[in-house]
Amino acid sequence: MDEAIRKVGYVGLGIMGEPMAMNLLKAGNAMTVWNRTPGKAETLVGAGATLADSPAAVAAEVEVLFVNVTDTPDVEAVLFGEQGVARGAEPGLIVIDNSTINAGATQDFAQRLAGQGVTLLDAPVSGGDIGAQRGTLSIMVGGPEDAVAKVRPLLDVIGKSITHVGPVGMGQVCKSCNQVACAGALMGACEALALAKRNGLDLDKMIEVVGAGAAGSWQLSNLGPKIAADDHAPGFMIDYMLKDLAIVADLARANQLPLSGAALAEAYLRAVAAQGGGRLGTQAMGQALERLGAFTFSD
Amino acid sequence: MDEAIRKVGYVGLGIMGEPMAMNLLKAGNAMTVWNRTPGKAETLVGAGATLADSPAAVAAEVEVLFVNVTDTPDVEAVLFGEQGVARGAEPGLIVIDNSTINAGATQDFAQRLAGQGVTLLDAPVSGGDIGAQRGTLSIMVGGPEDAVAKVRPLLDVIGKSITHVGPVGMGQVCKSCNQVACAGALMGACEALALAKRNGLDLDKMIEVVGAGAAGSWQLSNLGPKIAADDHAPGFMIDYMLKDLAIVADLARANQLPLSGAALAEAYLRAVAAQGGGRLGTQAMGQALERLGAFTFSD
Repeated sequence: MDEAIRKVGYVGLGIMGEPMAMNLLKAGNAMTVWNRTPGKAETLVGAGATLADSPAAVAAEVEVLFVNVTDTPDVEAVLFGEQGVARGAEPGLIVIDNSTINAGATQDFAQRLAGQGVTLLDAPVSGGDIGAQRGTLSIMVGGPEDAVAKVRPLLDVIGKSITHVGPVGMGQVCKSCNQVACAGALMGACEALALAKRNGLDLDKMIEVVGAGAAGSWQLSNLGPKIAADDHAPGFMIDYMLKDLAIVADLARANQLPLSGAALAEAYLRAVAAQGGGRLGTQAMGQALERLGAFTFSD
Repeated sequence: MDEAIRKVGYVGLGIMGEPMAMNLLKAGNAMTVWNRTPGKAETLVGAGATLADSPAAVAAEVEVLFVNVTDTPDVEAVLFGEQGVARGAEPGLIVIDNSTINAGATQDFAQRLAGQGVTLLDAPVSGGDIGAQRGTLSIMVGGPEDAVAKVRPLLDVIGKSITHVGPVGMGQVCKSCNQVACAGALMGACEALALAKRNGLDLDKMIEVVGAGAAGSWQLSNLGPKIAADDHAPGFMIDYMLKDLAIVADLARANQLPLSGAALAEAYLRAVAAQGGGRLGTQAMGQALERLGAFTFSD
């Protein structure tokens, strides 16, 4: 099929999905959308999107259907629930899952959809809500080459860097690798800041000189100044990172691979969440670590 | 004193000190040098440096004396040993310690030298042997402002980015922060690679897509490809990183600050060293982690 895709669906209009759907709409696609809370579709409908009654109804209308929901069971419900995508899909439909979920479950979902001629691509993203709004996301795509080629023009609308990393499920494996590297660099940056602060070192000077060398990372350069300023506003919320690190832990467990660094970062973030900080940005780990060495037991 | 410094000493001509001394010599300074193994001074002497009999003899000849030895006791021996710097120094001498050592000991050494009118600056470096050869090191300087200003032209010869981070000892604190951030990013990169390899993900694609986003780090971009290629050749040797992480642990202990991420990275590297890998590059942690999930017990 050489015709450009024109009929596109988007299911899951959260902080990420809504701006991604809007960018697809602005690019000239006929958008049909669905969200569990219909109110969240208002802006899109106002801009010309059609609100459907169910994921099945979206699937019946479109050539390509994006899904962007929280976790593995949510994707399963959207795909295979009573009014799910599988109920409305015609053979030839391509489903692109932008959620971050379990890689093994993704492969299972793909197999079940293949039975009715539907192709599933996993395409988790990195770059946060700002990246979603600006269409500058990094997208890690798993799935068959021909389907990826077919939807690439749509992916180019929502992302800046589109990488086809392997067969279906590999997008999710790559996203897990991303969160593991993130967790290590975040923990290194937070511990470095805690050590600096405890010793009265100028934090901005430390971030500058350390960030310029072999210890440099996106986390240190971008979150370090926020940690120094006790600014906990979320770029990426601890609750979401904890969800992703639970997915990492499941994969590592399936692999019988110990990932102790990622597990330690998860434990630190869980401690912050347990103190009511789940909706803070991940950089709140910095203040938590610093306080570990600075509080006083009283009787 | 507005006159440019011309008489410079360098004590400790190892893999870092030798090229740093050479750059100072090439910049037109009259160099007097000393090394425990005199043979290592040959190239410098051939290029015009004077070889002295002892650190004391170097100190008696120069206006600024650099020290670059392995660890805290080595610096103490060079400064206060029988033929140490303190025995030969005249008031007004500035000693610049490029070694990575204990911050508290540095402050103690500075106080002892101040008693005879000698100023100690701590100026640990980052950037490896390549940075030392090219004169592109990052240098974290602690000490009084006027002394730092006086020696800055010399530091500009050996480094690209010179940051005065605070009073004496703060250079070492900053270097510890550097190694903590390094350790976290290294561990994150190694665990991400281990997870990718275990799942058959294309490693170079993973490094590219993950490295471009919020999980990006110098460690992932520079050491990741080496890990992917099982190339363990040292940029920075595990034995040296272990020495630095022991210094970090001492500082954290003095601070009563738990730095569990750095401690975990140290433990991983210690395991590699225990298997005979101490002279490999720090990226060998990657293969070690991957193998943790891939070996078989046999009876």
